[in-house]
Amino acid sequence: MSAASETRVSYDELQSTLAEILRELGFSEDRARLSARLFADASRDGVASHGLNRFPRFVRGIRSGLVDPQASPTLVSRFGSLERWDGHRGPGNLNAYAAMQRAIELGREHGIGCVGLGNTNHWMRGGNYGWQAADAGVIGICWTNTMPNLPPWGATDPRLGNNPIIVAVPRKAGHVVLDMAMSQFSYGAIESYRLKKQLLPVPGGFNIEGELTRDPAEIEHSQRALPVGYWKGSGMALMLDMIAAMLAGGSATHQIPADSERETALSQVFITIAPSKVGGSQTVAEQIIDDLHKATACGDAPVRYPGEQVLKIRRENMERGIPVNAAIWEEVRSYGGSPRL
Amino acid sequence: MSAASETRVSYDELQSTLAEILRELGFSEDRARLSARLFADASRDGVASHGLNRFPRFVRGIRSGLVDPQASPTLVSRFGSLERWDGHRGPGNLNAYAAMQRAIELGREHGIGCVGLGNTNHWMRGGNYGWQAADAGVIGICWTNTMPNLPPWGATDPRLGNNPIIVAVPRKAGHVVLDMAMSQFSYGAIESYRLKKQLLPVPGGFNIEGELTRDPAEIEHSQRALPVGYWKGSGMALMLDMIAAMLAGGSATHQIPADSERETALSQVFITIAPSKVGGSQTVAEQIIDDLHKATACGDAPVRYPGEQVLKIRRENMERGIPVNAAIWEEVRSYGGSPRL
Repeated sequence: MSAASETRVSYDELQSTLAEILRELGFSEDRARLSARLFADASRDGVASHGLNRFPRFVRGIRSGLVDPQASPTLVSRFGSLERWDGHRGPGNLNAYAAMQRAIELGREHGIGCVGLGNTNHWMRGGNYGWQAADAGVIGICWTNTMPNLPPWGATDPRLGNNPIIVAVPRKAGHVVLDMAMSQFSYGAIESYRLKKQLLPVPGGFNIEGELTRDPAEIEHSQRALPVGYWKGSGMALMLDMIAAMLAGGSATHQIPADSERETALSQVFITIAPSKVGGSQTVAEQIIDDLHKATACGDAPVRYPGEQVLKIRRENMERGIPVNAAIWEEVRSYGGSPRL
Repeated sequence: MSAASETRVSYDELQSTLAEILRELGFSEDRARLSARLFADASRDGVASHGLNRFPRFVRGIRSGLVDPQASPTLVSRFGSLERWDGHRGPGNLNAYAAMQRAIELGREHGIGCVGLGNTNHWMRGGNYGWQAADAGVIGICWTNTMPNLPPWGATDPRLGNNPIIVAVPRKAGHVVLDMAMSQFSYGAIESYRLKKQLLPVPGGFNIEGELTRDPAEIEHSQRALPVGYWKGSGMALMLDMIAAMLAGGSATHQIPADSERETALSQVFITIAPSKVGGSQTVAEQIIDDLHKATACGDAPVRYPGEQVLKIRRENMERGIPVNAAIWEEVRSYGGSPRL
């Protein structure tokens, strides 16, 4: 991919273009705007892979019937500060946003709240829901299961999901938001290293001989991506799937089609905690980040907290325009009722 | 360490020996028995490093005044299903047990419950509190911060804790319990590889030149242990510390003395979720484990779920006696009022 293939568009143009397409696909006005905003936010924050670049697959899902543009989550059962919702295979980002919004209400009302959301679709960029919680002043912890794409430790066949988890802590000077999958690298990241003809910075999987490798093509061939921390991330991926499927009453990873065009009926968990209700102070977060910044860097790059880089990228992109891959941008614009190609 | 230095004692003898010593150190009858049980359970389950082998340090802490044998947690503040408790620097295992017990009550009452426990001491084997929650039929998630012992990603100086997290899901045929620190290996594990003159199975840290290494001695020298998943575990360790310190109102890692003999005033979080209250079924867990067991193993060892091996070890040790290091066992027995050496 050459640098020339990238261009910039304003945030407003990006959002309104996507919203218009979604309206034509059957989204109501408000829902089209919110879904488009969540895509635009991802690209704005430097996560185009789950922003604009993901939009074509999202549209294919709507057209194929995988995603029901009209469906909203409904409450299945409730007990105190724990609720189970059914996503009715609605748009994954709208469902996740609604579930986190409900979890925020529960956390404010009870100190801690939890929503299990079943029967939903890919939530696109999970980090959005962490920022959403932190913007509301609460700690947010959420995760999703996925189709099988990660071999359990000691196995060759992908039976676990890479099950991304997001942990967000509100902080005045900038929220601290960790967004990590249980695989060391996503297949999207592995592909982009291959396209750039680069090795991964650390081993990212096994080759077909079962040896750890930094060669992206070898991992694409073996389909044996590496869990973070080897056996540890493998164990955590399993736990996240179990809890999500139990709380959501939805599918577990082994019940989800292992095909990104058919991946649906996911299970997700949204937990919020309101530390201020028991005297928790954001000063604690400030002090921890201040201490982190005193660390002795071993390279040229300063030591950063999760989410620190996002703020910088966000500011720059809002000033200069959101970077978009020109080919994908043209493709997406062609989806509109009045093709502009 | 030669094989001859290991012997076996019955679970009852192990527990009653430790309990007697704790009574002499000022523990009440019930508390001595429970604390001793938690040490004995760790050794029984194959985690002697945080069972009997940890007992001498625990006794030193009591004698030095770091640990107050009489102190119990008290409620600081409460809001709905979220509570903050002060551990008053009581025995870490008793404090953690009490906090998880309270979290179990909150989870049963509200669907999800959370206890932040500040001003406590090392909880010894964290897995105990996961088994405790699962035995009570609820999902348990708990973590602790620690003294600084792990360099943040991109730094050379240890400013993060390895902050172990435990995730437990109840299951009739055997609970699924993950107990993992955010460092790839503990320094205890690294030392034991060095003593056995073995390399670590995967890189466990950096050498003094900043290169990843499997040589345990090099990591002990550099004090640069590796976070699980490189930058990912580094980020997670930071998040866990922030949330624990905020909820507990206790120290963050940067405020804890970096000396295992003075490590105190820790912050911990105990969350329970009762999936049955919203229709969650243990069948989900059964099916997920059944699917995991169908994985194609790449070596001779079958693919296992977290905690699977514990049950086997536990059964064997209850039948044959709990393995104890003979020298440590003799040392511990000498602590009694009537030395038996």
